[in-house]
Amino acid sequence: MESCKKEIYLDNAATTRAFDEVGERVRDCLCRSYGNPSSLHGKGLEAEHIMRESIQVLADILKVPRESILLTSGGTESDNLAVLGAAQARRRKGRHIITSYLEHPAVLAPMQQLSEQGYEITYIKPDSQGVLHEDDVTDAVRDDTVLVSVMAVNNEIGSVQPVSAIAHKCKEKNPNVLIHCDAVQAFGKIPIFPRRQGIDLLSCSSHKIHGPKGVGALYVADPRMIRPILYGGGQQRDLRPGTENVAGIAGFALAARMVTDQMDQTEAHMRSLKELLIKGIASIEETHVHGSDFDPMWGAASIVSASFRGVSAEVLLHALEDKEIYVSSGSACSSNHPRVSDVLQAIGAAESDLGSTIRFSFSALNTEEEIRDTIRALKELVPVLRRFTRK
Amino acid sequence: MESCKKEIYLDNAATTRAFDEVGERVRDCLCRSYGNPSSLHGKGLEAEHIMRESIQVLADILKVPRESILLTSGGTESDNLAVLGAAQARRRKGRHIITSYLEHPAVLAPMQQLSEQGYEITYIKPDSQGVLHEDDVTDAVRDDTVLVSVMAVNNEIGSVQPVSAIAHKCKEKNPNVLIHCDAVQAFGKIPIFPRRQGIDLLSCSSHKIHGPKGVGALYVADPRMIRPILYGGGQQRDLRPGTENVAGIAGFALAARMVTDQMDQTEAHMRSLKELLIKGIASIEETHVHGSDFDPMWGAASIVSASFRGVSAEVLLHALEDKEIYVSSGSACSSNHPRVSDVLQAIGAAESDLGSTIRFSFSALNTEEEIRDTIRALKELVPVLRRFTRK
Repeated sequence: MESCKKEIYLDNAATTRAFDEVGERVRDCLCRSYGNPSSLHGKGLEAEHIMRESIQVLADILKVPRESILLTSGGTESDNLAVLGAAQARRRKGRHIITSYLEHPAVLAPMQQLSEQGYEITYIKPDSQGVLHEDDVTDAVRDDTVLVSVMAVNNEIGSVQPVSAIAHKCKEKNPNVLIHCDAVQAFGKIPIFPRRQGIDLLSCSSHKIHGPKGVGALYVADPRMIRPILYGGGQQRDLRPGTENVAGIAGFALAARMVTDQMDQTEAHMRSLKELLIKGIASIEETHVHGSDFDPMWGAASIVSASFRGVSAEVLLHALEDKEIYVSSGSACSSNHPRVSDVLQAIGAAESDLGSTIRFSFSALNTEEEIRDTIRALKELVPVLRRFTRK
Repeated sequence: MESCKKEIYLDNAATTRAFDEVGERVRDCLCRSYGNPSSLHGKGLEAEHIMRESIQVLADILKVPRESILLTSGGTESDNLAVLGAAQARRRKGRHIITSYLEHPAVLAPMQQLSEQGYEITYIKPDSQGVLHEDDVTDAVRDDTVLVSVMAVNNEIGSVQPVSAIAHKCKEKNPNVLIHCDAVQAFGKIPIFPRRQGIDLLSCSSHKIHGPKGVGALYVADPRMIRPILYGGGQQRDLRPGTENVAGIAGFALAARMVTDQMDQTEAHMRSLKELLIKGIASIEETHVHGSDFDPMWGAASIVSASFRGVSAEVLLHALEDKEIYVSSGSACSSNHPRVSDVLQAIGAAESDLGSTIRFSFSALNTEEEIRDTIRALKELVPVLRRFTRK
């Protein structure tokens, strides 16, 4: 099957095109290796073997034991299981949790639930580049703090958090604290080794790295660190029941291996695309790249968040869409509700930038030519749209 | 792609082979229509359109409004969302729930959780054929009863429950009662119309009807009937957040349409296979078919649960496996933990039957020849294994 290459897809932080090999693998599992891993016969064992191998791939990438990987329905469930599950497991040790204003709704919404159940949540503010300072987090740790949840790479502006420093310092102050890291935008893109980094719980998602949607993983250093949030037939040591999505998991593992094998090359490739795009944006007047000050080496290579002052982000998004260039006007992870970005507000973005920010996000599949076309389109569209927008 | 047809797969209640068309559809979505339904651009709209069409297919099959369908990661999540979500939504109206000893762990395990939270759970006993009596259920309804959860078709023995009569009678006694029906073994196999049947919450699963694993649906008559159990970015009206598994959902809808279009023919086909198999089993001495008294018209056409006295079910399962005949020694839904079946105990099965029961479960893909081969294998193996087992 050929993929349609006319389109320029620069919304890879929202989701990615599955690799052709992944599509093939999923189809093969669905139609041939279709057993239930819980079945005792050969058809079940075949499926269980695929599961086991796939888990081993993920474990090897993270350099953790196979037993510490749980499979979920995606990043949202992984984050929920980490946050709600850890709070429940540690409820006798304390009810104080630390997180940040940068986090994804899949972390913030469960925090809100815990808050309604009487937990106290401390939200750490990032600096103007969208980076948390480890001392700010550590200072917030108390005797009754049970969980610190900070993401690895911010999904809106691409800032990279000092997770390892945060983890080690927080644990130094209070060894009972569990560290959860939402690595949905980091896994497969930058090196993540939870054990070395002091991370106890790590959320990953498949569809951000050219794997299927509807699959994710949660690394759990010790099963006693969480309680389940779904209950059923005992699968995955009762921590996440339900017939395993074998085909999805196999596709996830294949995608994870493929992106990991090419991680350095892809990082360099995306970094060059980022540099090219940032230069192009800098050549348009009254633009601003969040976090970076037009420094392409800043933050994750995969994300550029830029404001085009005087242009409505949504209008620009649709004008680019007419040219089959797909970008985001924020994070796609909040369903169909365009609204002012909490992250941009947290980094103190200018009022004028809030409504005019576009996120470009890359993958290994993007090309320099696509970025040149995008810059050309921006140079053409932005001045025109400014004329229409300004009164 | 050709499917391997040497094997005789009679474990369709555990999981099914995805239709080739489903595998193709999933691959196509993963690699081509890969947008995030929450993205505002065309790539997102394309994915949202697929979602919407797929939901419409499910809604049409159930004859319910599109808005009442929630998509989940499978039957286990659907059951959890129904049971835990309804209990949470109705917690101010009462804390008494009715269910049965026949239910799947995906219902019973959340009930256990609720019990630990102070809910009182009444478990209704089925008759010796594994059927619940509506009066037994209705008698248990109290002023503080908020939920009645009964399955449509039992996964172990195939008994069909009088869900409609239960629903209407319970609501007559207490209009506040919500009716949940786990229809995982029924959806796509027997007609289910929740509105006509008085069902408020209905769980379905994709992988039991030749769709992908990791996808399910929950019909919710009114969104106020449940509270979410996962929290995140607002997708699915905040009742079930997370980037939707577009490819899986499209595959689920295609499979659902395919099995529904052929439901009558498949039912007749499976019924003839059931008749054939039951006759074959009856011709082997000291056998018993649970529920049916060797009546092929009894219960669901898809399931035959039979005991071969004096033979260990697990040994027989593996002996059949050697001939590439795949069956179950109970329900595969309890992960890798062969144990005495609660359902068989609930119907008062003889002690000697508990460890010697095999479940055969059919799909449209099975053939008469496969059943003849299976009977031949049973006639050969059972006497031999009896000689080995008996002292």
